[in-house]
Amino acid sequence: MADDDDDDALRSIARVQLREHERRADHDMVVREEPLEIRVGGIPLAVVMRTPGDDEDLARGFLVTERVVESADQIASVRHCTTAEAPEAENNVMQVVLAPEVAIDLARLRRNLYASSSCGICGKATIENVLAVAPPIDDETRVAADTLYALPSSLRGEQAVFGRTGGLHAAGLFTPDGQRLVVREDVGRHNAVDKAIGWALAHDRVPLHGTVLMVSGRVSYEIVQKALAARVPIVAAVSAPSSLAIDLARAGALTLVAFLRDRTMAIYAGEQRVS
Amino acid sequence: MADDDDDDALRSIARVQLREHERRADHDMVVREEPLEIRVGGIPLAVVMRTPGDDEDLARGFLVTERVVESADQIASVRHCTTAEAPEAENNVMQVVLAPEVAIDLARLRRNLYASSSCGICGKATIENVLAVAPPIDDETRVAADTLYALPSSLRGEQAVFGRTGGLHAAGLFTPDGQRLVVREDVGRHNAVDKAIGWALAHDRVPLHGTVLMVSGRVSYEIVQKALAARVPIVAAVSAPSSLAIDLARAGALTLVAFLRDRTMAIYAGEQRVS
Repeated sequence: MADDDDDDALRSIARVQLREHERRADHDMVVREEPLEIRVGGIPLAVVMRTPGDDEDLARGFLVTERVVESADQIASVRHCTTAEAPEAENNVMQVVLAPEVAIDLARLRRNLYASSSCGICGKATIENVLAVAPPIDDETRVAADTLYALPSSLRGEQAVFGRTGGLHAAGLFTPDGQRLVVREDVGRHNAVDKAIGWALAHDRVPLHGTVLMVSGRVSYEIVQKALAARVPIVAAVSAPSSLAIDLARAGALTLVAFLRDRTMAIYAGEQRVS
Repeated sequence: MADDDDDDALRSIARVQLREHERRADHDMVVREEPLEIRVGGIPLAVVMRTPGDDEDLARGFLVTERVVESADQIASVRHCTTAEAPEAENNVMQVVLAPEVAIDLARLRRNLYASSSCGICGKATIENVLAVAPPIDDETRVAADTLYALPSSLRGEQAVFGRTGGLHAAGLFTPDGQRLVVREDVGRHNAVDKAIGWALAHDRVPLHGTVLMVSGRVSYEIVQKALAARVPIVAAVSAPSSLAIDLARAGALTLVAFLRDRTMAIYAGEQRVS
C-alpha cells in the first residue's frame, strides 16, 4: 500500500497513556472514519461511514452488492463531488453516472437499504429475497486446504494499516491457487468487502467466478450476501460465522469456511469445494 | 444470563472441522443473527440485523439513540408483532406505541438513518448535526483508573455467549465505582449498545448521567454518538478508536478511553474524568 493511502487512512492524534498509575502524553495513529455519500444520477442513495481511500472502488462495489449493476460497462463514470458547499466535503461525496440503458429501481433499493415493507420479515424470508435476485451459485471451483491455510498471512501481509492501529478490517480476493488479486481495508467490514469487489468491477472481473473472498474478522449475513451478489463461490474468515450467514451460504450454494487459523478451519457450507 | 436467553442467542450447527488434512464432522454453537423490524405507530422505521433476545430493550435503546424519545414515559408500549403473515416472523417485528404527546419527525429520522440531503457531508458537519440535537455533556463524574482496569473482566464475566462462540460483541453500563448495571451481547456492536441503553430506559435511568459505557471491541463514531444521545459521560473500549469517534467525543465533552487491557489504557478525550 502506498504512503498516500496510509495518509488517507490514518491520522495522528494526541492522547494520554496510562500504565498502572503512571501517565504519559504521546501521539497515536488512529484509523480515519468519515462519512461518504454515494449518489447515482444526482440522487443520494446512502451514506456509509468509511475509511477514506479507494472511494471509487467502494462506490462501485456498493452498486454491485446492492445489485444495481452487474458489469463494469454499466457504469459511465465514478468521481468525487466537485460542487460541495465546503471544500473538505468534496472528498466525501461520490457521484456515479450509470450507462444510459441501466434502469435503477430506487424504490426497491431504498427498501433494501433501509426497511422492509411487510410484517413477514424473518431469516427465511430474508434469504428468499436475496435468492430471488441472486440465485444459488453454480461454480465447480476447488481450493486446496493448504491454500486456504496460507490466506490469513497473505491477507495480513497486505494490511499496512492494521499493524499500526489495530483498528481496521480487511477483505481480500484470491484465486483458487492462493494468488492475491486485491486486499482492501476499512473501519467497516462491509466496506472492505465492497472496496475489494469494486476493484474487481473496475478490472472487469465481475462476476467473480472461481475466486475466494477472505475477511479478517467474523462473517455476518451481510458478507455472504455481498459475496453472492458478486458471484464469489468461496468465503473464508479468521473468526466466527453467524447463523444467518451459514443459512444463506447453504441456500446460495456458497462454501463458507471460518475459524481459519493455525492450520485449522471449520467448514459450515459447501465442503465439496475444499480438496 | 438465563438459559432461555442462550437458546435465543445460539443455535447448534453441523460443520466439518479440518486440522491439517484430517477431517472430522461435529456440531458447533453459532451466534444467531435475524432481522428485526422496528415499527413506530405502525410505520416501519428500520430493519436491524441482530441476535434475538432483549428485543424490547433493543427497540427502546434504538429510539433513545436516534433521539426519538428521552425518557421512559414517552413510550406507551413495546411488544412483538402479533399479526405477522408467518408465525416465525412474529418474533422479528417490534411494535412501538409512543405516548400521545410525543411528536416524531419521520422525515428527519429517515434522513438520519439512511442518507443526507446535502452535498455538504463531512466529519465536521456530521459532528455539528449531532451536537445540534445532543449538546456537549456537562457531567462532573470521576472514575478511578483502578475501577476502569477492572471493567473488561467484569464485562467478560457476564458474556455468557461469547466464550462459547467467539462471535459476539458486548456492551455494559457501570457506575463510577465499577458496579455493573447491565451487560448485553449482540452480533452487532451498535445493537449491544442499544440493548444496554434500552434496559436503562426501561429502568428509568435515562439520561445516563454518572455512568460508564464499556464495549468489547473497537469504538466507532456510532458508539460515541449513541453515548452522547443517552448522556453517558464516559466511554471505554478494549480496542482501538476511530478518528471520528475521537473528534465527536472531544466536541461532545465525553471521556473516551481505549485499549483498556492488562492494566493499561489510552485516553483520547476528557482526561479530567479519570482520577
